[in-house]
Amino acid sequence: SHTRLLFCDCSVIQVILSAFQQQKEVRLKSSPADLVTETDQQVEKMLISAIRRKYPQHRFIGEESVAAGEAVELTDSPTWIIDPIDGTVNFVHRSQAQSYCLCHQTEFGIVYSCVEDKLFHAQRGRGAYLNGKPLCVSGQTDIHRCVVVTEIGAERDDLALSTMTSNICRLLRLPVQGVRALGTAAVDMCQVATGGADAYYHIGMHCWDIAASTIIVLEAGGVVMDTDGSEFDMMSRKVIAASSSAVANGIAQVVQAFPCLTYFKNGEGE
Amino acid sequence: SHTRLLFCDCSVIQVILSAFQQQKEVRLKSSPADLVTETDQQVEKMLISAIRRKYPQHRFIGEESVAAGEAVELTDSPTWIIDPIDGTVNFVHRSQAQSYCLCHQTEFGIVYSCVEDKLFHAQRGRGAYLNGKPLCVSGQTDIHRCVVVTEIGAERDDLALSTMTSNICRLLRLPVQGVRALGTAAVDMCQVATGGADAYYHIGMHCWDIAASTIIVLEAGGVVMDTDGSEFDMMSRKVIAASSSAVANGIAQVVQAFPCLTYFKNGEGE
Repeated sequence: SHTRLLFCDCSVIQVILSAFQQQKEVRLKSSPADLVTETDQQVEKMLISAIRRKYPQHRFIGEESVAAGEAVELTDSPTWIIDPIDGTVNFVHRSQAQSYCLCHQTEFGIVYSCVEDKLFHAQRGRGAYLNGKPLCVSGQTDIHRCVVVTEIGAERDDLALSTMTSNICRLLRLPVQGVRALGTAAVDMCQVATGGADAYYHIGMHCWDIAASTIIVLEAGGVVMDTDGSEFDMMSRKVIAASSSAVANGIAQVVQAFPCLTYFKNGEGE
Repeated sequence: SHTRLLFCDCSVIQVILSAFQQQKEVRLKSSPADLVTETDQQVEKMLISAIRRKYPQHRFIGEESVAAGEAVELTDSPTWIIDPIDGTVNFVHRSQAQSYCLCHQTEFGIVYSCVEDKLFHAQRGRGAYLNGKPLCVSGQTDIHRCVVVTEIGAERDDLALSTMTSNICRLLRLPVQGVRALGTAAVDMCQVATGGADAYYHIGMHCWDIAASTIIVLEAGGVVMDTDGSEFDMMSRKVIAASSSAVANGIAQVVQAFPCLTYFKNGEGE
């Protein structure tokens, strides 16, 4: 399969794990929420060059390439969307969740949570898996029984912060059962696929944060939509993933979006 | 050691793990945020009876006994503080973090995160350990570089919710680097001991949620104080744990407390 091919070819997991053991040279990018490591760039380059050897015609959208100035363009051509390390802040802090994400458009997605050694993957029409075991969403339809996952993200202007925290407050007033934030959008969203959480929403993330997880959630039987309840658009920087349409719509009614100002900033959960 | 004795005697970890695989009968207690399982009560009873056989004079404060109406009284007598399952909401959702906590007052503390199979323990003057490896806080002194962990908790009245979300908003405005909520106070607090997070604060938790983690954080070189910056009081339902006094004081300046109305409710993170 594509998956095995890639992992054999470029041993990206070993790169991440060994880097994780070492002290990393951390450079501050555009905000304190915004760390990037050598590993980040190294992994993205390795992945792109390994895939290019196999599929010279394929296109790429990679977090680090975009940060370096490349255009973000999602065409109908086969495109790989890559986030070399999602949850860079967690990575630098050697904290629990972070991941490496890779996605071949709507065909298949891989999220690897390296600290937990959890490999999520899904292929269109073939189901979603965690370390080889099939995944299924909780099927929860009652929003009051939901555990909801979200992320703070990189947007730190006043409007973003007040809207973000009001969203959490309104959800808790419904009430929902709990709100979590693990620090990596990709892993957060995969919680919905496992049934460990019933919903995930996020405003401000980029396509590479959630492209792989989107396929994983859909293949696990979940629904994915825009935070305003409309059809999901991978480039819109807004997403709800949920165990059922009822729950997704319930979240959409409560959550308000805000303008995302920090296009090239990659904050926590990203 | 006490630790080994207890685990050998009552095999509590096996009980938790096997229960986790089964469908659980979930009863709603006083709020939707407030789930309790048979396992919760079963584990507490087992622990108390195992310890009583060895130490018939010792006293106990257990989450389930208190919920059943027993008085909470912390005296100078040797007292075991027990939370059979911290993160019951996560437990019921089979989500990532939950734990079993046990603490012998200020002498030693055990937190077991059963899904991750992480056993944190510390004994006064003898250091803190994760699966046998010594733990050390990050030592971070700059609050702007901190990852802060907190919990929503069980308080869901308007004042609690608005204060809780304003606290998060004010922290992000400082800014801090990120805010996390894993769904179990004990494991959250242990993140500070590992250096994976730099600070943890919580308003509304109970002594059994954090008694064990307090010893673990202190033995890992961290500081523990009240959210108003005063001396930590295990019975006050307010706590800051941090990598340094500078960070703890920085959190204390921003975070506001609120009245805890739900004494016998055990919500998420508890």
